[in-house]
Amino acid sequence: MWIEISRELLIKAVKKVSKAVPANSPVAALSGIKLTARHNGLTLSATNLHVTIHNEIPADTQCLTVHRTGSVVVPAKYMSSIISKCPAEQVTLRLEKQFMLGILSGSITYRLCGMNPDEFPHTEELDNGRSVHLPSVVLQQTIRQVAFAVSTSETRPILTGVSCESDERGHLRFLATDGVRLAMNVIPTAQQRGLDWPDIIIPAQHLQDLSHLLHELDEMIEVCISERQIVFKTRYMSLHSSLISGNYPNVGNLIPASCATELVLPAKSLLAAIERVSLLASDEQIIHMQLACDNLVLTSQTAEIGDVYEEVAFLSLTGEPLNISFNAKLMRDILRGADCDHMTLKFTGSLKPILLHPTGRDSPQYILSPIRTSV
Amino acid sequence: MWIEISRELLIKAVKKVSKAVPANSPVAALSGIKLTARHNGLTLSATNLHVTIHNEIPADTQCLTVHRTGSVVVPAKYMSSIISKCPAEQVTLRLEKQFMLGILSGSITYRLCGMNPDEFPHTEELDNGRSVHLPSVVLQQTIRQVAFAVSTSETRPILTGVSCESDERGHLRFLATDGVRLAMNVIPTAQQRGLDWPDIIIPAQHLQDLSHLLHELDEMIEVCISERQIVFKTRYMSLHSSLISGNYPNVGNLIPASCATELVLPAKSLLAAIERVSLLASDEQIIHMQLACDNLVLTSQTAEIGDVYEEVAFLSLTGEPLNISFNAKLMRDILRGADCDHMTLKFTGSLKPILLHPTGRDSPQYILSPIRTSV
Repeated sequence: MWIEISRELLIKAVKKVSKAVPANSPVAALSGIKLTARHNGLTLSATNLHVTIHNEIPADTQCLTVHRTGSVVVPAKYMSSIISKCPAEQVTLRLEKQFMLGILSGSITYRLCGMNPDEFPHTEELDNGRSVHLPSVVLQQTIRQVAFAVSTSETRPILTGVSCESDERGHLRFLATDGVRLAMNVIPTAQQRGLDWPDIIIPAQHLQDLSHLLHELDEMIEVCISERQIVFKTRYMSLHSSLISGNYPNVGNLIPASCATELVLPAKSLLAAIERVSLLASDEQIIHMQLACDNLVLTSQTAEIGDVYEEVAFLSLTGEPLNISFNAKLMRDILRGADCDHMTLKFTGSLKPILLHPTGRDSPQYILSPIRTSV
Repeated sequence: MWIEISRELLIKAVKKVSKAVPANSPVAALSGIKLTARHNGLTLSATNLHVTIHNEIPADTQCLTVHRTGSVVVPAKYMSSIISKCPAEQVTLRLEKQFMLGILSGSITYRLCGMNPDEFPHTEELDNGRSVHLPSVVLQQTIRQVAFAVSTSETRPILTGVSCESDERGHLRFLATDGVRLAMNVIPTAQQRGLDWPDIIIPAQHLQDLSHLLHELDEMIEVCISERQIVFKTRYMSLHSSLISGNYPNVGNLIPASCATELVLPAKSLLAAIERVSLLASDEQIIHMQLACDNLVLTSQTAEIGDVYEEVAFLSLTGEPLNISFNAKLMRDILRGADCDHMTLKFTGSLKPILLHPTGRDSPQYILSPIRTSV
């Protein structure tokens, strides 16, 4: 292996695949990035066995010249810090004997001890043909709107994943819940009818990794699935993720059918008010909302610290007066995740879940359970 | 107490005095900021008993109106987060019964439980008349050039401070060392002859706090001292620091008298080369420098990771060839602290301290002890 490559391009590619490098692993090869130089380009790969990322840089006279093909695994941590400090705009990578990689740039020469590429796990390819195509922007937005709502506790591993199911219209429903809040988004695919798509649960962390990879990308993503894994493919990148096995709980009955009080207001102003009021909320982040016909008030208090009272402006408030308490942090997550101008909040009662969605749209949809308080 | 004040101005003042608030203190009043409203202005004060900061905001129709004088101590953490979130540009602070402070801004009203100002420690004033005046820019530069070199270990508390002594010309010498490296700067005062100034040791952390306070300030600082404390006064701020008692070690004999090899080069390019080469230095951060008549080479290596070799460009290199090893982190600190274009490095031998100073100037001066290696 002997290549010349643009430093800028190599930095970006190393950064992308590094998301899959495990922080600690008993398998030495997993702490590395596999470099494979072929005549048509350079491929970088990293995996923690649960998620695998490949990134390809096509050969081209400006950015990448492949003088000699070959492959090596280099320690990700050192590779990343060396490349980012290289003094020249071009970097030469040259494999010497015993997997020693020479890294030359300007006046400096590094020799980095690499590992045998045969020790790097092989990536299983899916060729069962079950796939859909989704615009990268839609996929990224869905991840942002839904994935935050998963559980962070490992007591129920299924809830750390995002459920993805298809319906008879050929739509995909992404759903996440931790038992207190729920986030859901339905997106259409190019198919007009039922897909050959099993019910799957995708680890939320891998979707977050995917979201980072898709940043600033605007192309169609091919999404392929099997029983055990899902693969997201762009033109030059692919992310292979394991799936969480088990049956996702049925959450259809959680969505309130009726609505006693409806509130519409700018999402940003509610978010800002909740941020201000939660400063004096107790450690449990409980804040109280009082809805009356012409008045919306948020309050919170902590013993021996103080209390706070804010009147919040709104666009419309209809229905029964109501007092309700909820966790400020969970509400902030929803308002940030929804990423919309105006939000509709629907209340059924003080102890009934709050239903939220962007005003005028059905999706994404959120549910937040209230907190029972003595106030 | 009842005042109206610009939110921006209050945020800045709270941030400044917060440097003196201890992270944890058994004395409740110390976790607070004392607010004192007089007809001519508002004073904010904070202390951890070792360092005390006062900041005054003068009354003025635009930024501060004092409706009623008074004083209260408010919890620094809550005050700071509340003020930074206030929605309007003006904030009203109004003391209610039992040290409850109302904070009103736009549509929000906070009530924060304060403490009795009588429980806040009294600041001792110095009026022995022993003082000098220094430009804030010179004082800030000296702190940056010297204070980093103190010891971070508490085994010899004296070395965690910066020694400050006067000489017969009326100059002040600031010096810091941790036993391996030494930094020294001499600055003139307005006095032409000996000052009535005892040898003192100032805690480096307090000088760093002072440096933050002086940021973007360009005025003369009055520096007053007594046996037990030093006070730095600007027009609207003052920082009172305790002193470290004891005798600072005599370091005059550490400065090499002769020089066998002299190297002159741009400080930035040496710093960048050391940063690159130290990427493959072992945990002890040892790097090696080879000086020959027409060649300057830096190398380092770590077993099982790799090695690195860089030829560094220089302006002049005279004297004997020499190989020397040193701690890369300590050298980087010196090159950053010196804050100059060109640096002169003087070597006496492989096992003798390296003397460094900005080319063409005597001050600041640095000494770095080499490391004995088997390479």
